[in-house]
Amino acid sequence: MPPSKQRAVEQLIASHQTGYALDQAFYVSPEVYQREIDTIYLKHWLFAGHDSQIPNSGDFFTFEFDTESIIVIRDKDNSIHAHMNVCRHRGSRLCLDKTGTVKLLSCPYHAWSYNLSGELIAARNMPADFERANHSLHKVHVELVGGLIFICLAPEPPSLAPMRNDLDEVLQHYGFDALKIAEQKSYRIPANWKLAVENYQECYHCAPSHQEFAQVHAMARAPDEFKQLKTEFWQAHKNDLKFQQHNYYFDLAPSACEGYQYDRNPLLKGCVSGSLGGAAVAPLLGDISAYDGGASELMIGPVNFFLLYDDHILGYRFLPLSLDECACDVFWLVREDAEQDKDYALDTLTWLWDTTTQADKAIIMNNQKGVSSRFYRPGRLAEMEHFQQSFLNWYLTNLNKVNDNEVCDK
Amino acid sequence: MPPSKQRAVEQLIASHQTGYALDQAFYVSPEVYQREIDTIYLKHWLFAGHDSQIPNSGDFFTFEFDTESIIVIRDKDNSIHAHMNVCRHRGSRLCLDKTGTVKLLSCPYHAWSYNLSGELIAARNMPADFERANHSLHKVHVELVGGLIFICLAPEPPSLAPMRNDLDEVLQHYGFDALKIAEQKSYRIPANWKLAVENYQECYHCAPSHQEFAQVHAMARAPDEFKQLKTEFWQAHKNDLKFQQHNYYFDLAPSACEGYQYDRNPLLKGCVSGSLGGAAVAPLLGDISAYDGGASELMIGPVNFFLLYDDHILGYRFLPLSLDECACDVFWLVREDAEQDKDYALDTLTWLWDTTTQADKAIIMNNQKGVSSRFYRPGRLAEMEHFQQSFLNWYLTNLNKVNDNEVCDK
Amino acid sequence: MPPSKQRAVEQLIASHQTGYALDQAFYVSPEVYQREIDTIYLKHWLFAGHDSQIPNSGDFFTFEFDTESIIVIRDKDNSIHAHMNVCRHRGSRLCLDKTGTVKLLSCPYHAWSYNLSGELIAARNMPADFERANHSLHKVHVELVGGLIFICLAPEPPSLAPMRNDLDEVLQHYGFDALKIAEQKSYRIPANWKLAVENYQECYHCAPSHQEFAQVHAMARAPDEFKQLKTEFWQAHKNDLKFQQHNYYFDLAPSACEGYQYDRNPLLKGCVSGSLGGAAVAPLLGDISAYDGGASELMIGPVNFFLLYDDHILGYRFLPLSLDECACDVFWLVREDAEQDKDYALDTLTWLWDTTTQADKAIIMNNQKGVSSRFYRPGRLAEMEHFQQSFLNWYLTNLNKVNDNEVCDK
Repeated sequence: MPPSKQRAVEQLIASHQTGYALDQAFYVSPEVYQREIDTIYLKHWLFAGHDSQIPNSGDFFTFEFDTESIIVIRDKDNSIHAHMNVCRHRGSRLCLDKTGTVKLLSCPYHAWSYNLSGELIAARNMPADFERANHSLHKVHVELVGGLIFICLAPEPPSLAPMRNDLDEVLQHYGFDALKIAEQKSYRIPANWKLAVENYQECYHCAPSHQEFAQVHAMARAPDEFKQLKTEFWQAHKNDLKFQQHNYYFDLAPSACEGYQYDRNPLLKGCVSGSLGGAAVAPLLGDISAYDGGASELMIGPVNFFLLYDDHILGYRFLPLSLDECACDVFWLVREDAEQDKDYALDTLTWLWDTTTQADKAIIMNNQKGVSSRFYRPGRLAEMEHFQQSFLNWYLTNLNKVNDNEVCDK
Repeated sequence: MPPSKQRAVEQLIASHQTGYALDQAFYVSPEVYQREIDTIYLKHWLFAGHDSQIPNSGDFFTFEFDTESIIVIRDKDNSIHAHMNVCRHRGSRLCLDKTGTVKLLSCPYHAWSYNLSGELIAARNMPADFERANHSLHKVHVELVGGLIFICLAPEPPSLAPMRNDLDEVLQHYGFDALKIAEQKSYRIPANWKLAVENYQECYHCAPSHQEFAQVHAMARAPDEFKQLKTEFWQAHKNDLKFQQHNYYFDLAPSACEGYQYDRNPLLKGCVSGSLGGAAVAPLLGDISAYDGGASELMIGPVNFFLLYDDHILGYRFLPLSLDECACDVFWLVREDAEQDKDYALDTLTWLWDTTTQADKAIIMNNQKGVSSRFYRPGRLAEMEHFQQSFLNWYLTNLNKVNDNEVCDK
Repeated sequence: MPPSKQRAVEQLIASHQTGYALDQAFYVSPEVYQREIDTIYLKHWLFAGHDSQIPNSGDFFTFEFDTESIIVIRDKDNSIHAHMNVCRHRGSRLCLDKTGTVKLLSCPYHAWSYNLSGELIAARNMPADFERANHSLHKVHVELVGGLIFICLAPEPPSLAPMRNDLDEVLQHYGFDALKIAEQKSYRIPANWKLAVENYQECYHCAPSHQEFAQVHAMARAPDEFKQLKTEFWQAHKNDLKFQQHNYYFDLAPSACEGYQYDRNPLLKGCVSGSLGGAAVAPLLGDISAYDGGASELMIGPVNFFLLYDDHILGYRFLPLSLDECACDVFWLVREDAEQDKDYALDTLTWLWDTTTQADKAIIMNNQKGVSSRFYRPGRLAEMEHFQQSFLNWYLTNLNKVNDNEVCDK
């Protein structure tokens, strides 16, 4: 990017007024978008999928955003690798399908072949001084959180250690090691990705827009009522393992460590899960022995969100496809030993969040149309939008970190 | 826009050669397009619709061009307002449908609610220092010409007073206060909007391209023949109210006042209206007591054109959708007390101009393809293109008025 | 283009490393693309079609790439002209259909009319000082090679004389004067045009990607085996007219003359033509009296390639449609006196190269996706990619020739 355009982005960042929505330029500028890819999507951990998707050696799936495609593949030693889906010869995609099983990663163009760990092991007819050892696939970092696969495209990813220290025990309690994906849906939204993330960050819109959600979750109530319900809920369960708070999200994240959050919130009276009327929809997870009428929020990294009900888990991830299109990918996870149609039914399991996400898709599209107007002016945020405010604070600071060499010392 | 790009546009304007078509850059440059929106579509009066579309309190329709959407709505006191369709909170569109009836303008996102005159009357959970009074919807100017609704997005719109002084009487004679929309069609054309307006400005193409029109309108004849027919026509009707000329269109518009034109032209022998063979198609308008074999041209503002037959009125408006797409919206208006299928038939009423507009759409598309060629050179204009020449003169002058503070003193 | 962007392109060209694939910017930069149109497609000879397509006076076809459209038309004296399909008045396309027959080139907009040689012969109502003689259609150079029609949009096209001196005899032997188009297909590929040309330039991918081709053509074998097969083939036919080599392609082209190539390669044992299993598919061409088990490569200009089997000829041409879309147009030519369904069947004739081109389309699309990744790095080329290397050398040198005044002195 030319220096003049860099400076324009920096001036834009500097001119943001705290407590207000973002200026139009953040939603429509190609230079801002490029910076976002560089400083967020190429630097932070992304939830790619679940290890139950690739049980055997050679099983792979691909993970895509913007112009990028990553191969997530299981090796013979059971380890999981991630490689950029770009041949080192002339750049062809290696894996053309979204899932599959291979013995080698062989390029469909000229048959350069890589083993499952990404090393080039065959390339015909190359000059004498060609060194295969220098032509491995570009490696992408992988970490497992239970069975959840996270990847990071940065050379030196932010540390997940603080998150693990705080959350390992509770995630084990939820049986994160023994889940499977019951369903997965991708919602393409013709809007800038931030409008989707901002939408996920605030429940100010829940009451007017999501009556199905509002009938189940206390969070949709007015702040005072919600605060009281939450206090009572915590008092009734103060020694339970699931009742913890770890607020290191967005601008609260420790320097150079990946941000995270864990918190538990009450459902409304009579509700035990995220479903029509709050009814139970699947076998209890992990070591959980009884419904307690709550649900936990979990965030790991800036664009990956989980909602932990006692009997199933929602995974949400937001990916940019271009400046004005994004994907909201939703995963429904259940116990790995639960049997479909016996222990759970897909339509019952997925109804609430499929309904809610479709409503949000419409909302976000209309928001995109409005912020594209020359007459849009960033408005004042409500108090119920404080998570969104925290996202915006972090976003603006992070966007300035083009050359960042911080060290995580937590 | 960076100063270097501004200068490039100004040099382009300065280099135009009078008597010739526009240079390619005017049709393909995003910077020129942005200037056009700023200096034409955000500064001049636009024909939005007719008050018969919104008879009752709370009735609204939306009006859209480029990235903009405007709500035109009737208030409880019967007045008509126009508001930008952008919530003052996070920018969502407020009205998602093209027409409807509401009690309040309530945002579908977070339920901020505005009364019909655009004042914010409800916003939950806002900080203590938040002032609703500062958060009215962005107001758009509205003026009625008879029942025709015009809007202007400029802070200080050009004056319509000179037009009213000259035309009130004749428009009343036509019954502009008592019309209704019989039909409305929108033609999307994959071409720069100016090619569509230029097409509307000249009848040099009528004879070769529009035989249906040419069988009815004397204007399609060679200039000398047309001039003679017009002279005879005016001599036969010299005292009639409809026979007037007011030529303040385009570069003839008085400074800072909105341009306008009224003129009357003969139809061909035996023709009385704009239809197959020139036959009558609807009840006579207003105070008109008999067909006189003519039709009047009316222009109010630079992109709104009307054709006044004795028994119906055509409304034409040209709107940019993007650099290379525009809409030509056509309205057929009849007496408000005329009954469809009894007093007029839609297919008979709309045939001539639907046929003609479809032909023009094809012409304009092919014009766009040609001016996109590296080998296109602006050609010499014919004498029959003098209205187009006037449009181009005005267009180029107007495009330079980025910061204009003229006063209408007519 | 602003000087700063010109310099950026020149730095990009200078930074290319010989022996490697192109940098990403060559595939995604609008400035590079514009330079390519200017220095390649507007400066070199393009294969437009065959004179059998327009047998009679007034017959025309149009030829299109990027924003350009050219009319190729036969005049009354049997000569063939090419004109830019852009009216000299307001720029409309003149010919809207892909093929047709006309008496005059009459503009569908305002009826300006040109004779078949492009002179303006009628324009109504123009100012007194208007001179028709200055308003001929923009002329495009035409040369025939046998019945093949080549056009060049440059004011002074590169000379085809060296090609003619070398190849006239062998092309006559193939009956280039007496061919017809049996079939013509256009494959639209969502990729930058260079990825398609590069694909055509190398047979490194033939063995892994094109088993149908590899069962017929020795060229798909490993280089040593191919070399030996070719040597034996040439020794067996050393005096035959078809056995010639003229390698003046790409960077080997003589200065300011158009590049060309002719060479003959063996098919595999038992194969005589380009078809399923190498079977004969049409009557022998020209003066050829018997199959010899070979096929000749012919290139005339940088983006036009021919494959001469003994019984039919393939024509390939690559045209940019936009930065990231191109057309690969394929022509199957047979003797003009061959009768369809009697002497040849279309499906048999076209099977091999339709199959191969569809496979290449998929390959090229995946290549485009990969080079669009931020992690794509230009890889080392294989020895079997030496034609591609020659193309790249020429391409980069040619791209710098923005203002070139060389003279062909061969």
